[in-house]
Amino acid sequence: MDMPGDSSFVNEPGDSVFFEDDTLCLIDQTALPAESVILRLKTPEEAAGAVRRLAVRGAMAIGVAGAYGVLLGALAEKSGDVSSIRKAARESIRIIGASRPTARNLFWALESMEGVLEEGIDDPTVLVKGLRERASLIARETIGTNRLLVEAGQEVVGETASVLTHCNSGALAALRYGSALGVIIEAHRRGKDIRVYVDETRPLLQGSRLTAWELQREGVPFTLIPDSAAGFVMKRGLVDLVITGADRIAANGDTANKIGTYSLAVLARAHGIPFYIAAPSQTVDWGSESAADIVIEERDPEELLTCCGKVVAPERTEVYNPAFDSTPADYIEGIITERGVLSRPYSESLEAFLK
Amino acid sequence: MDMPGDSSFVNEPGDSVFFEDDTLCLIDQTALPAESVILRLKTPEEAAGAVRRLAVRGAMAIGVAGAYGVLLGALAEKSGDVSSIRKAARESIRIIGASRPTARNLFWALESMEGVLEEGIDDPTVLVKGLRERASLIARETIGTNRLLVEAGQEVVGETASVLTHCNSGALAALRYGSALGVIIEAHRRGKDIRVYVDETRPLLQGSRLTAWELQREGVPFTLIPDSAAGFVMKRGLVDLVITGADRIAANGDTANKIGTYSLAVLARAHGIPFYIAAPSQTVDWGSESAADIVIEERDPEELLTCCGKVVAPERTEVYNPAFDSTPADYIEGIITERGVLSRPYSESLEAFLK
Repeated sequence: MDMPGDSSFVNEPGDSVFFEDDTLCLIDQTALPAESVILRLKTPEEAAGAVRRLAVRGAMAIGVAGAYGVLLGALAEKSGDVSSIRKAARESIRIIGASRPTARNLFWALESMEGVLEEGIDDPTVLVKGLRERASLIARETIGTNRLLVEAGQEVVGETASVLTHCNSGALAALRYGSALGVIIEAHRRGKDIRVYVDETRPLLQGSRLTAWELQREGVPFTLIPDSAAGFVMKRGLVDLVITGADRIAANGDTANKIGTYSLAVLARAHGIPFYIAAPSQTVDWGSESAADIVIEERDPEELLTCCGKVVAPERTEVYNPAFDSTPADYIEGIITERGVLSRPYSESLEAFLK
Repeated sequence: MDMPGDSSFVNEPGDSVFFEDDTLCLIDQTALPAESVILRLKTPEEAAGAVRRLAVRGAMAIGVAGAYGVLLGALAEKSGDVSSIRKAARESIRIIGASRPTARNLFWALESMEGVLEEGIDDPTVLVKGLRERASLIARETIGTNRLLVEAGQEVVGETASVLTHCNSGALAALRYGSALGVIIEAHRRGKDIRVYVDETRPLLQGSRLTAWELQREGVPFTLIPDSAAGFVMKRGLVDLVITGADRIAANGDTANKIGTYSLAVLARAHGIPFYIAAPSQTVDWGSESAADIVIEERDPEELLTCCGKVVAPERTEVYNPAFDSTPADYIEGIITERGVLSRPYSESLEAFLK
């Protein structure tokens, strides 16, 4: 595992997910933008629940939350017996791994925690310390790689740029710097003249609730639009480029991301607008040859049948509510990673730069 | 004006808009699907308000409601003076014409009512009778042309067909038979094996609230999807054709319809799926050469900033909320009208069959 050496990447309060007093702390993303509430979780079950109900979301953030959740499971085992601790940690991995299927980063983090369990450590204190250090390292690496990523992404954002993005891929989704939204915010911080078109991102409105909130805090000019207006905004010539995050990237570059990303990629191509994905190497699933191997999570029909508690569709309405879709590599102009902006063919560039 | 001779097309209670006891009656489309409430309106101001807040919506339904609203204005003028009645009717036309700009059918209906005022009638009773008969005729023609349209549309719907539609273009939007949704429902009634994918249609959810409600009442199998899933559903091979309604059709075939229609047309083309518009001749705006001449209504930012009363975006968020977009004629495989399914070039076929 790479370890960004810079201590400024240490995970700490102020990040969207952090660990303090043996407690997993995270901004409750379901309460934004009305309220900024820090949840304090003590068990792996609570961590899994927070992932499942999207209190913490974003591939990178749930990876870190998952790692800390495993640590919570180990810390809760008070017998002082190393095999009991190992068993509790493995049970935590199982519970958290069953929360949501698509984000590669979650499984990357859980596999990394499992790696500590497999080191043959026979001292309980050393094992817990190892798990604690690994979780911290996963968090630090997430922050560090995203810092590199947002810098690398600058080459695709001109001095004056209007960028369309979807869902949320900022600090909330990645602890501190973000991926796609991080690239956009970094461009603004560098003095570029940036305008962002923000898809509201139904059904759970991560665009209007979270991305708009982050952009407003950073002072980046933005315009909120319904998802269905993206094509018309492109047709009107208002968009220079599209950047979104990713939840899982197959070895050939096919990418799973929030439902609607695929439509944006097709629309961008039809308008001659470059479409970029931004994600760190942790997001690549070397075991998936293409999108055909990626499991797409389907979420509760209630997300469409009710809206903020009000019934908006007839009873017994059949719903198809995929949380993600997949975009063929061919539609992706570049994949912005911590090691630079990769180009097609991704089957070669991903392997050469990230594996 | 054409007059469908069949008396079964007479507008009556049971239609989504009707006139009874000198009162404009309409199903409150903002209350569906939770409640089916009939609003009873007595003034042109109330009629304009109902159009503005979408209690009545759908180009054809607001055309009829607008005509009856003018009649309400004339009926409210009790002086018995013909010039006062004419003045009241013209003021009603002004008020109702200022409600929403895009639906051609509304202006077609108001121009038709104005035509009665210009007939030089000098008897107040005859003038009011003329206005009443014209409003009834507009309603009957709306029903009759839509009946012909849903029959004509059958040639584009196979014996087994999966159809994607957007917004609502059924009986609610057109009194009784509907346009795009009417074609789909007629196909089901004829025993075709129909499956409908219904875009929920943010921000006001006419798909989930209204189209789902109509399909369920008719027993047509359907699946509700977020707008942003349309591309992915097409990619998965689940859609045979797309049909939507229209609010205004330019003389060259460019078509304004609910925001998101343009994206669907582009996505359909990218997947080799035919994209059809269904609308009667009343929807054609001979004065607009192309979409460049069509005024696109922008609606209240609140539609995106709040959701069923709950705040879902930060304060002071800038919003772009166009109610409609325009689809170039080139993307449209056919325009389903009461005189058959027209083909490109529409500048010729529209003129030959509808003018």
